[in-house]
Amino acid sequence: MKTPATFDLEKYLTERTAAVNRALDEFLPPAGAKPGTIHRAMRYSIFAGGKRLRPALCLAAAEACGGDWRQALPLACAVECVHTYSLIHDDLPAMDNDDYRRGKLTNHKVFGEGIAILAGDALLTEAFAIATQCRGWPRYSPREILRELAVAGGSRQLIAGQVADLEGEGKKISAAQLKYIHERKTAALLICCVRLGGMSANCSRAQFAALGEFGRKVGLAFQIIDDILDVTQTSEQLGKTAGKDTQAQKATYPSIIGLEKSRLMAEKLTREAFAALRTFRGKAAALEALAGHLLRRDK
Amino acid sequence: MKTPATFDLEKYLTERTAAVNRALDEFLPPAGAKPGTIHRAMRYSIFAGGKRLRPALCLAAAEACGGDWRQALPLACAVECVHTYSLIHDDLPAMDNDDYRRGKLTNHKVFGEGIAILAGDALLTEAFAIATQCRGWPRYSPREILRELAVAGGSRQLIAGQVADLEGEGKKISAAQLKYIHERKTAALLICCVRLGGMSANCSRAQFAALGEFGRKVGLAFQIIDDILDVTQTSEQLGKTAGKDTQAQKATYPSIIGLEKSRLMAEKLTREAFAALRTFRGKAAALEALAGHLLRRDK
Repeated sequence: MKTPATFDLEKYLTERTAAVNRALDEFLPPAGAKPGTIHRAMRYSIFAGGKRLRPALCLAAAEACGGDWRQALPLACAVECVHTYSLIHDDLPAMDNDDYRRGKLTNHKVFGEGIAILAGDALLTEAFAIATQCRGWPRYSPREILRELAVAGGSRQLIAGQVADLEGEGKKISAAQLKYIHERKTAALLICCVRLGGMSANCSRAQFAALGEFGRKVGLAFQIIDDILDVTQTSEQLGKTAGKDTQAQKATYPSIIGLEKSRLMAEKLTREAFAALRTFRGKAAALEALAGHLLRRDK
Repeated sequence: MKTPATFDLEKYLTERTAAVNRALDEFLPPAGAKPGTIHRAMRYSIFAGGKRLRPALCLAAAEACGGDWRQALPLACAVECVHTYSLIHDDLPAMDNDDYRRGKLTNHKVFGEGIAILAGDALLTEAFAIATQCRGWPRYSPREILRELAVAGGSRQLIAGQVADLEGEGKKISAAQLKYIHERKTAALLICCVRLGGMSANCSRAQFAALGEFGRKVGLAFQIIDDILDVTQTSEQLGKTAGKDTQAQKATYPSIIGLEKSRLMAEKLTREAFAALRTFRGKAAALEALAGHLLRRDK
């Protein structure tokens, strides 16, 4: 699978990532705000070198719908805050008990468990504060936009995925159950990213549906690749502990359907994600390039 | 200090509490929603016998501003979700490490730490989902209303209080530092309750300011009473571990200024809270009765 030769994804990602980092720095309370600990802890994880794929997908979705990506910045940053809070909490000893993330010590290893829990809570709360700065449209009010974020991050989506993941450890689970986990733990927030981007650009209902479909396919492919990398890459390459899933006896696509079939499935899902973009008639070059990039990534 | 003889607070609280409980039951995902664990854990703490003082303050504030209290229900329930999430997380072993709350085992004692963290996260997220169902007004858009909630629950208010509380353990702190903690850990959310109630009723800016002042005074008085009860009541009377503050070497008003002065201070603050209600010219009977009740409570 190739992405259009004309689209310079590296340049796109560099520019958008810089804009997102600037916006996050502005939206978040300053590092010097009292109490210092919590704000240092929040910023430690937010600026720990995340690839900003979710914000990039959000901004690219806004562009695909003919919008100005700058108007999607509050929502792109809000989703990144939700994503980062979920990582901080997932890494806690009571959950996945991880010491490293993105090549750096996890939040609780640096600040202690109490502050790490609170830093996660604060980023989740801040996500909604930031999202209130979105622009509303007759088709999508701020109320609906915030609801989209709350539902994606809620107990039937993002959190449901983490619960099922936690409860599935050490158990033999089916491919269907694994799909249930991935759809919630990973795909829900990716769907939310692109939908929010679309909403920020007052997208049509057809575009909204296409973005949701694209997000779901990309989200599942993303998680399958994650599972594959966990067994094929070293901890150094990943910047987080490799082989964790196997150790924790977590079901993964490679463990259930094998490595080769997993690769084929990720490719099929990416093709289906491309197909969902047809309705944008060439305006979704960035989204397409991002989906291709996610498939080929090595960390 | 007396509350107006004509106001039947017991009847008021019984009726409003029933309405809030019904609304929470409707707003929250059903107990049978998948995954079962998280929804049982969320409902376990939400329906653990909380006194619903925050929702009652929110509804009473709406009435004081001439509004219909039913329109304030989504916001009253949202604040209760934020309050309950903060209790679940505060009780965790990495924080206050409490086994009992409202006479029942704490969330993590029943569901385990991992699920308790996620149940808190889910209630916090749900708070914003529920708050999106508020009614907007020309003076207060849903965007502003949600922002009020996010700021009160954020890293410079509610969470800042918990951080300062955590960091103050075992240290000698001043009365000023203790006030800093209480203003954030307790008063911030009480201020938010009454302000949201006012906003739901399209209150004037003067009313908004008066409600904030009332909330701050009541919040500080509330926390002083809490500190006093911690040293004067038994665990059985409180339904939570008594003497915890002394054990954890936490600074409290009685430990800094003594029991008698603490009582006088709580009374003074309550009188000041009453004074802040003057602008409502008799329409704030419920708010006044609630403030009096908070001062006289024995648990």
